[in-house]
Amino acid sequence: MNAQTPAATDVAAIVLAAGMGTRMRSTRPKVAHVLAGRPLLGHVLDTLDMLGAPPEATVVVAGPHMPEVERLAAPRPTVLQAERLGTAHAALQARPALPTPPATVLILFGDSPLVRVETLRAMVARRGEGADVVVLGFQAADPTGYGRLVTDGRGALEAIVEHKDATEDQRAITLCNAGVMAVDGARLFGLLERIGNANAKGEHYLTDIVALARADGLVCAVVEGDEAEMLGINDRAQLATAERVVQGRLRRAAMEGGATLTDPDTVFLSMDTRLGRDVTVGPFCVFGPGVTIGDGVEIKGFCHFEGCTVEAGATLGPYARLRPGATIAQGAHIGNFVEIKKATVEPGAKVNHLTYIGDARVGAAANVGAGTITCNYDGFAKHHTDIGAGAFIGSNTALVAPVRVGDGAIVGAGSTITHDVPADALAVTRAALTQRDGWAAKFRAHMKRLTGKG
Amino acid sequence: MNAQTPAATDVAAIVLAAGMGTRMRSTRPKVAHVLAGRPLLGHVLDTLDMLGAPPEATVVVAGPHMPEVERLAAPRPTVLQAERLGTAHAALQARPALPTPPATVLILFGDSPLVRVETLRAMVARRGEGADVVVLGFQAADPTGYGRLVTDGRGALEAIVEHKDATEDQRAITLCNAGVMAVDGARLFGLLERIGNANAKGEHYLTDIVALARADGLVCAVVEGDEAEMLGINDRAQLATAERVVQGRLRRAAMEGGATLTDPDTVFLSMDTRLGRDVTVGPFCVFGPGVTIGDGVEIKGFCHFEGCTVEAGATLGPYARLRPGATIAQGAHIGNFVEIKKATVEPGAKVNHLTYIGDARVGAAANVGAGTITCNYDGFAKHHTDIGAGAFIGSNTALVAPVRVGDGAIVGAGSTITHDVPADALAVTRAALTQRDGWAAKFRAHMKRLTGKG
Amino acid sequence: MNAQTPAATDVAAIVLAAGMGTRMRSTRPKVAHVLAGRPLLGHVLDTLDMLGAPPEATVVVAGPHMPEVERLAAPRPTVLQAERLGTAHAALQARPALPTPPATVLILFGDSPLVRVETLRAMVARRGEGADVVVLGFQAADPTGYGRLVTDGRGALEAIVEHKDATEDQRAITLCNAGVMAVDGARLFGLLERIGNANAKGEHYLTDIVALARADGLVCAVVEGDEAEMLGINDRAQLATAERVVQGRLRRAAMEGGATLTDPDTVFLSMDTRLGRDVTVGPFCVFGPGVTIGDGVEIKGFCHFEGCTVEAGATLGPYARLRPGATIAQGAHIGNFVEIKKATVEPGAKVNHLTYIGDARVGAAANVGAGTITCNYDGFAKHHTDIGAGAFIGSNTALVAPVRVGDGAIVGAGSTITHDVPADALAVTRAALTQRDGWAAKFRAHMKRLTGKG
Repeated sequence: MNAQTPAATDVAAIVLAAGMGTRMRSTRPKVAHVLAGRPLLGHVLDTLDMLGAPPEATVVVAGPHMPEVERLAAPRPTVLQAERLGTAHAALQARPALPTPPATVLILFGDSPLVRVETLRAMVARRGEGADVVVLGFQAADPTGYGRLVTDGRGALEAIVEHKDATEDQRAITLCNAGVMAVDGARLFGLLERIGNANAKGEHYLTDIVALARADGLVCAVVEGDEAEMLGINDRAQLATAERVVQGRLRRAAMEGGATLTDPDTVFLSMDTRLGRDVTVGPFCVFGPGVTIGDGVEIKGFCHFEGCTVEAGATLGPYARLRPGATIAQGAHIGNFVEIKKATVEPGAKVNHLTYIGDARVGAAANVGAGTITCNYDGFAKHHTDIGAGAFIGSNTALVAPVRVGDGAIVGAGSTITHDVPADALAVTRAALTQRDGWAAKFRAHMKRLTGKG
Repeated sequence: MNAQTPAATDVAAIVLAAGMGTRMRSTRPKVAHVLAGRPLLGHVLDTLDMLGAPPEATVVVAGPHMPEVERLAAPRPTVLQAERLGTAHAALQARPALPTPPATVLILFGDSPLVRVETLRAMVARRGEGADVVVLGFQAADPTGYGRLVTDGRGALEAIVEHKDATEDQRAITLCNAGVMAVDGARLFGLLERIGNANAKGEHYLTDIVALARADGLVCAVVEGDEAEMLGINDRAQLATAERVVQGRLRRAAMEGGATLTDPDTVFLSMDTRLGRDVTVGPFCVFGPGVTIGDGVEIKGFCHFEGCTVEAGATLGPYARLRPGATIAQGAHIGNFVEIKKATVEPGAKVNHLTYIGDARVGAAANVGAGTITCNYDGFAKHHTDIGAGAFIGSNTALVAPVRVGDGAIVGAGSTITHDVPADALAVTRAALTQRDGWAAKFRAHMKRLTGKG
Repeated sequence: MNAQTPAATDVAAIVLAAGMGTRMRSTRPKVAHVLAGRPLLGHVLDTLDMLGAPPEATVVVAGPHMPEVERLAAPRPTVLQAERLGTAHAALQARPALPTPPATVLILFGDSPLVRVETLRAMVARRGEGADVVVLGFQAADPTGYGRLVTDGRGALEAIVEHKDATEDQRAITLCNAGVMAVDGARLFGLLERIGNANAKGEHYLTDIVALARADGLVCAVVEGDEAEMLGINDRAQLATAERVVQGRLRRAAMEGGATLTDPDTVFLSMDTRLGRDVTVGPFCVFGPGVTIGDGVEIKGFCHFEGCTVEAGATLGPYARLRPGATIAQGAHIGNFVEIKKATVEPGAKVNHLTYIGDARVGAAANVGAGTITCNYDGFAKHHTDIGAGAFIGSNTALVAPVRVGDGAIVGAGSTITHDVPADALAVTRAALTQRDGWAAKFRAHMKRLTGKG
């Protein structure tokens, strides 16, 4: 017996992800569904990464025809559960991928994405304190339907009793089985292969490991987590519930970090969203994966961000969309109905209205007028637009990439720019005006006669 | 007595819709207010349609000066309640429209839009089992203020007692009167005309029908519905509450059907919205009436749809607006700040940024650049734009309809196209460039002197 | 003793606003954080204005280095609490600013923005009925942690007992101390300077005034407010909670006034938002400060407004942004992805798609086509665009200000207009078309060879 917490490298994990998820009514594997911008399986794998479990010892058990699960698991090994013979059978499939199991093997569920790393740490620590099998439990507000954890009152687990098999006294127990386990690696597979299937469904159930272990004289123990962590995703309503739980965690953390969310319930964050101090986020904002927002940034609402970096003191929105590769530098302004993709907007530059900037640089303190479009695509390749520092792009201008507008240059409104503009030059393309006095009045009279309108 | 459920054609309905709705503080009749994209009255009439009540036997009782109610009721007959003399008086006005009433006449309220067709079916079935008067009841969480339904414990209704007239024992009853009734058509109007008005307000109350019927030795019965169905709309707060109830039903149904709603509370559906399997709907989306979305469509949030069809595998938004007559075919992409109206976007076509497509066809696999506008209106009539398969429309282009861009044609950025472009041709309108080197520097120096800025 | 309610001019106020607000994790003073479009301090000062307290007798106590608080307080006097020595010490700093205090001095907290004017009126009235010190209390759902108000059962306040000092009997009291006080102006500062600091933190606590007053034989009394009013803002989560409370008040008032909010929880109002009767507000709308919306206006959702006026019967959105100085006249239409700033859109005019109108007038019944941009800025100054009544601006047009389009004139699509257009004239700038038949097919073949794509 070893009273120290084992090193993370002493931990392996088996993640059960073979479920079909029929109630999702989906053609995608259940664990590929997305929560807070990340697949369910990704949440579990990230938690294991945080724990320090080595990727090569994190084995994902997939069902047949689930290449998407393999892709999500990679570079971690995937094994196949070809037949649907129960959770113990599923876990047993991991054996070839863990020929010499470490001190502790965690068994987790790919459709239970909310289990926290602190909870796993406590389970691993309990293993280090001498328990051979550690079962994750929780106090259920309403235990009906759950397996009950029968303990000796001093932390030892005596049995897991299914609801339907429980006595009246046992049904009064509120400590329930979450399914997650941490098992002595040297004994795990031996125990698993002894689990039978003498039950109504003819399946091999992982929970039966406790009775076998106790019969062998091994120590079984319980670690308690919160009920909210245990939520398993079986249908879209539960997916929405999990999203609410995760968003609640993320929003609280953002506010504790010094961001104002006018209405937290209308702000959607991703697991990796980083918001600085004194960031203000108006109503109706979505932060997809990969977003970093610096101190004091003002986000006016109705914004959609992913894969972008915004530096301190910038002002964004309303209705700004920043796509992957957008970098908005200090004090820059991005206004309404503006899309920025794979582009850097340098300090103090302004892109305020109805503009598309893609594959571009907007130099410091440049001003990009309303309705400006970088024409970055020719149907085959994307090309770069470079706008110099202090340049002024008149409204309704098309910049046909590859093209370069020099520092301090001015482009006249309504231009289509196909050649580089030298620094400090004026460039404008403008067609001759045709004016016909009285024409509009005649046209209207004519159309009124024709249509009876007006 | 007939133990069979009567055929739907044996059912008529009287819908009371004459109320002023003073607490709505509106110039519109109360039943014309909108819930989930449909007027309150429309909800009740739709439920009757689902029941199979014939339109010509569905009589709406309107108040004076309510042409909007007549319009909403059409083609169903409307009768006028000229004076405000109570619910029994209102129902009696339907007599001329139902000269030979069928076996069952339902009496419903135009401002109670949430009663379900299953509940009405149960009432009609109860009529078929021998009850002459069937009253809709519900178990009230807090019965204060409601009329209580006094039963004999075996399903027979003995009396409806108003809260203020109830004994202490009767006040303990939680089974309350919802107002809705199903009455033997042969007896209804005879009973209604005997209802007196010897009460504080001098009105003829429909609830008094029970006492009269029992005095005649008729059988009165109760059918129970859920309290949530009974919500009557008397003010805007109750309208918002009803919206929440209806949206809750619609969202749950969408999720059960296999759609992911990131946050169901931020998705607004209409009664007739159809979402396929594996549709994902990001936060902040509004589905107005007449929207059908095919399997696997990804809706990125901030979208507004009405009267449109989206085929399988298309990608929409964020910030996409599809207006009536928009059809988005398989695998097409509609991006941000894009409006599509009365137009077909064929398979695989892309309209990704800041574009207005109205009265148009965008051919298969065509690419419409950012800032493209179909100029469909000349101030009098709308004209058609046709973009061929595989065509490429350069950014910031105006297509002046009627105009046709042939298959595979390319339009250069910044063009204004007023004539048809042949297939596989290049068309571009581009004015000559004026470039003045150093002009911008001089302009700035001049303006700084003038304004002191810069 | 004077049984009349004192005139408002008999009231002065001291607003304590020196707190650092460490838990906000902000560089801004706590009272400068924004709630419903207004700083916390502004809410308290507005409530005092509604009460009728003269600005020159409303003294704000700021901490060191808080110029923002001074700005927010102006023209009201600010005094400095240089050292953090407790609430009594803070209030005492106001003495030089109130050399001859009026009958009643209110002491309020800048971070408690929800106290209602009715509550302050009741406190002032209670002073007028003979109480020397009036303390604001509330019934706490969970009193743990609050100071308890010990009364004699007949309205007289006997003591304020801190939670930690309370007996078991006192802890059963649910009437708690909100901190706000109304004190006889002639006695206030004398009492304050006698408050000691013999406590754990060595601070001078305002609550100790009650014991001193009672020792002097003065009358102390309690006025009760609602618990919701008492919310103090100490962190961003409490700020979000307060926003929810304020928005709830504003939304209810809007609905009672006859506006339909499809989902009230998705509509964000400001303290001064005015919505007419039969206004309908779709989901996802933000009303910043200074917005007035006339009767019957339809707001289709996804709109963002500030500092604007919309007249009766206009139609707005979805995705319309009205910025300060926008006036939308009767029956005008503002459509999607449209921004209006400092401009008047006259009756019946239409600006329906993807347009920026800034520093402009759009004449009655004019039609502004999709993609129109007023080029109002030359890098130094803003210039005006004037569009005459009945004018028709073709799509994708740039209007380079200063410029004037006469009544009834037509501007052709895709034009850049730099000179005035006479009334009833047609003006169009259009470059010559270059068409190269077969070019697109050759280009594609060439690019396919180069890139291997297509």
